[in-house]
Amino acid sequence: MEITLDDLQNGYYIYQSKDGFRFGMDAVLLSRFAEIRSSDKVIDLGSGNGIIPILLAANTKAKHFAGLEIQRKSVELANMSVEYNSLNDRIKIVQGDIKNASDIFGKESFTAVVTNPPYMINDHGLKNKDEAKYIARHEALCSFEDVAEESAKLLVSKGRMFMIHRPFRLAELFCTLKKYRLEPKRMRLVHPYIDKPPNMVLIEAVKEGNPRIKIEKPLIIYKAPGVYTEEIAALYRL
Amino acid sequence: MEITLDDLQNGYYIYQSKDGFRFGMDAVLLSRFAEIRSSDKVIDLGSGNGIIPILLAANTKAKHFAGLEIQRKSVELANMSVEYNSLNDRIKIVQGDIKNASDIFGKESFTAVVTNPPYMINDHGLKNKDEAKYIARHEALCSFEDVAEESAKLLVSKGRMFMIHRPFRLAELFCTLKKYRLEPKRMRLVHPYIDKPPNMVLIEAVKEGNPRIKIEKPLIIYKAPGVYTEEIAALYRL
Repeated sequence: MEITLDDLQNGYYIYQSKDGFRFGMDAVLLSRFAEIRSSDKVIDLGSGNGIIPILLAANTKAKHFAGLEIQRKSVELANMSVEYNSLNDRIKIVQGDIKNASDIFGKESFTAVVTNPPYMINDHGLKNKDEAKYIARHEALCSFEDVAEESAKLLVSKGRMFMIHRPFRLAELFCTLKKYRLEPKRMRLVHPYIDKPPNMVLIEAVKEGNPRIKIEKPLIIYKAPGVYTEEIAALYRL
Repeated sequence: MEITLDDLQNGYYIYQSKDGFRFGMDAVLLSRFAEIRSSDKVIDLGSGNGIIPILLAANTKAKHFAGLEIQRKSVELANMSVEYNSLNDRIKIVQGDIKNASDIFGKESFTAVVTNPPYMINDHGLKNKDEAKYIARHEALCSFEDVAEESAKLLVSKGRMFMIHRPFRLAELFCTLKKYRLEPKRMRLVHPYIDKPPNMVLIEAVKEGNPRIKIEKPLIIYKAPGVYTEEIAALYRL
């Protein structure tokens, strides 16, 4: 496996497999959307190379981050990055299955869940030859329902779940969250351009929250081809 | 009851109570969002003064519109407008309760439902003194669940439901629709300005449709205070 060490421009670095799964804008957007408080105990479900805990460690004052990832090579990369950045006291990466998360970590042991789960339903046609990428993108090893069920178990009452997913599954996502008493409370749609349909959706759900959702203004990525909007440019500068 | 006769600027006119419920932009947006085919049999649930069937009669070639409205005075106004516009052969307004809609009209007797139901949950604080306005805006006489349940009964399989509602109830709306096998298939959020949260949401659901939703680009009302965007201006010109 060929590996790169990339500068996150925030004081931290990340190891990534050159040809495997590399983090994208979704991880950056999720880490900004998640309102993590200094007292939070945070778990990232499906942590991949650990990008989200590392970005959250850079952006917030929270001291306790866990990352759960099923793929051994991704866990190794994540641990290398944690070590390189001297974040061992704040971030623990664990190899394991999301479906067993509450057995591994204990019920009601977190105040916040973040997750960038596989987007694609398992029966989509095109299969990615690279197994690591395939598992990261498709519901091969766990479904969104598994993620919701375990998130609800891991969270204390009123704990918050922050996630990014694809808009085409929005109705299903909301109903699955509600099924596990994770009430959708805040949503932001991400559009590549102002006059295009969204290609990502950010959602905050609250365990045992009241049923009322706040939908935010659209998040627009580009104002012209290759030119970020002010909001996205500012987000990358921070 | 003081009454006005207002020019809809599309060849048709509408009678409205001067101090009661008067149609707003929501009716106009819904009538444009609804993709009504010439062969459709359409019912408007909670038809008020009949504005939606009249706008749809103006915009489409469909021949069969029904409107169901519980308030006698609104039904009278709607019938006056139908008469005035010589639309008696295309639009039938019926007085009755949405909760009995499938008993009144028969099951699977429509290919499309349109509805602009009361937005507000019944326990909201401020009660409008005018009973007609109050009933039109609050779930005093029927809940959204009643609307969904009866819509599902009224529609043929693959029949479409077009609705407008408030974004703060989006998660509940989706789950209630899915509960009655009305699959949310298309959604558009309506924002007063591009940098403001949405204040309306347009939804198309398909009875027994497959679970995959298309979210459209945002619909923006104003480009400056009092100045419509091109899209809204065009919509009013049509």
